[in-house]
Amino acid sequence: MIMFDNASSTSVKRSEGQRPLVDNSRTATARAHSNIAFVKYWGNCDHRLRLPANSSISMNLSALHTTTTVDWNGRLDADQLTINGIAAGEGALGRARDHLDALRRRFGVNAFASVTSRNNFPMGTGIASSASAFAALTAAAAAAARFELPEREMSALARLGSGSAARSVPAGYVEWHAGSSHETSFAESFAPPQHWNLVDVIAIVSREHKQVGSSAGHETAASSALQPARVASAPARCDAVKSAILRRDFDHFASVVEEDSNLMHAVMMTSQPPLFYWDPLSLVIMKAVRRWRQQEGIPVCYTLDAGPNVHCICLASEADAVSGRLLALSEGIDVMQSGVGAGACVLPPV
Amino acid sequence: MIMFDNASSTSVKRSEGQRPLVDNSRTATARAHSNIAFVKYWGNCDHRLRLPANSSISMNLSALHTTTTVDWNGRLDADQLTINGIAAGEGALGRARDHLDALRRRFGVNAFASVTSRNNFPMGTGIASSASAFAALTAAAAAAARFELPEREMSALARLGSGSAARSVPAGYVEWHAGSSHETSFAESFAPPQHWNLVDVIAIVSREHKQVGSSAGHETAASSALQPARVASAPARCDAVKSAILRRDFDHFASVVEEDSNLMHAVMMTSQPPLFYWDPLSLVIMKAVRRWRQQEGIPVCYTLDAGPNVHCICLASEADAVSGRLLALSEGIDVMQSGVGAGACVLPPV
Repeated sequence: MIMFDNASSTSVKRSEGQRPLVDNSRTATARAHSNIAFVKYWGNCDHRLRLPANSSISMNLSALHTTTTVDWNGRLDADQLTINGIAAGEGALGRARDHLDALRRRFGVNAFASVTSRNNFPMGTGIASSASAFAALTAAAAAAARFELPEREMSALARLGSGSAARSVPAGYVEWHAGSSHETSFAESFAPPQHWNLVDVIAIVSREHKQVGSSAGHETAASSALQPARVASAPARCDAVKSAILRRDFDHFASVVEEDSNLMHAVMMTSQPPLFYWDPLSLVIMKAVRRWRQQEGIPVCYTLDAGPNVHCICLASEADAVSGRLLALSEGIDVMQSGVGAGACVLPPV
Repeated sequence: MIMFDNASSTSVKRSEGQRPLVDNSRTATARAHSNIAFVKYWGNCDHRLRLPANSSISMNLSALHTTTTVDWNGRLDADQLTINGIAAGEGALGRARDHLDALRRRFGVNAFASVTSRNNFPMGTGIASSASAFAALTAAAAAAARFELPEREMSALARLGSGSAARSVPAGYVEWHAGSSHETSFAESFAPPQHWNLVDVIAIVSREHKQVGSSAGHETAASSALQPARVASAPARCDAVKSAILRRDFDHFASVVEEDSNLMHAVMMTSQPPLFYWDPLSLVIMKAVRRWRQQEGIPVCYTLDAGPNVHCICLASEADAVSGRLLALSEGIDVMQSGVGAGACVLPPV
């Protein structure tokens, strides 16, 4: 097996600023944060390339990250994957292998990889890790291959592993442009983390594993009669949320964020088969959050991904009060807090 | 004031089979049943005429009825309305008065009415009474004026008071044709009550009065980006549900009924302002019903109107078992059962 043939490959196109492999080091570690979408990604135009049906908007979550080490290692006869200290099962390994194949093609690497990944947040909280996982994997794999990619290409490559991973590559407040090809479907930052001090108070209502994962869910989106209308109106919501964030206009932000979450779940519930990600407690929290904002003037709004946990987005000054109110709603609720996170980055060698 | 001028009026058009007033009797009593929609009515093309955005399908509920006596009485100087023995407040009285005005115009009656109405089901259960109320009022008012209307015109007239009242006029399994004018928007039976022995086991989860009534809710429907897609796909669901009822095909019936309910609530949740009629217990019941059908093969499905109560439609043979399961789900749940009901009818004088 020829290892690290990228230096001699002629079939691999390189952007400016990329360097061929010049030393024997083949290991690197990168970190990427989870993100929460304010305008959601749900459904693809192209499942293989994960080209989304609509552009989306998110913020990275500083408190939730994945740290991944990639070792391109010519002595291996297969890819290896360890998550939180445990050898991954065939499902996770197969998905990582597919992504590593894409990265090998792009980087001109001809070796298997040993991948070690660790989330700083507990597994089984229903908090999605695929965004931070594939962003960190892509960044670590590139660094290990000594490839310096422009951020937008790193974002597009991460997208191939998990759509929302594209948004975990740039820092802070991020827009993922739907695009129409691999190259044009990438995320970029439109405001840095310090622009606006929002906090995501995550109400964890169920530690059960999702019945239908996001990847399978995306494929059902087109079966809802409502998906075309959600997609058609998404650009206006992207503009509205972006503008509200740039102006730090919480009220406007809140109404569009909740509307967008309701729209995505409306599509989910009317798909074939219908997907009900809400737990009864999710509904209790959604109604309470709305009441707190509309009747008591507390700057907080809700959004839910493909799971029952409720992300309560609020001004940082209100985060502790919101956490206390959530805990008081029911014994079945736990909370985690996160501020606005940085982009994917390579960590210095230990 | 000239009373009962319909005999001499030339401005009132009459259908064949109608007779002018020939005696002095001016009182009549009629009964109409509530109905549950399988393909829902939500949103109007014309609010004043209550021309619906889409055709709908329902069955009448034998156990839930309103009995109404109308006395066209020349000695009155205003309309009077008593509901369940209590003089109605201005809201209900105003709405009845508007409807009586329309009936006076149609029947050529020039007197005020004393209206006495009684529901056989408890008020404040969240079970809508406007359908049975306006169907019974229309039938009693016509009979008191000695007008014999073709059923489809009675249905169209009842529609002016409350859209879904159109469906409580014909018997059994009913289709309300959306139509494009007052005359063409009426309901008719497509199968008699005895065609299929379905039972509605109503899970009552909240006795609170609705925050937003149906009439106000219909006006918000157009503010949802999803309403056009729901409306556009409604004719196919009407055909599917009708065909499933005619074939007594419960599985097909169940999947379309649940889909249609989810579609209406998807529109409600994404309106401006969003309307969340579901209670957390509603969600518990919806998920349980789906599980009972899909995992245990019990012929039962759910549908929800503009309120939190869950109508669990099942074969009559399963009604007691379904009731028992619902009661076992939570102490907060009460149940009522109803079979398939007759149409609106005039009761003999006592």
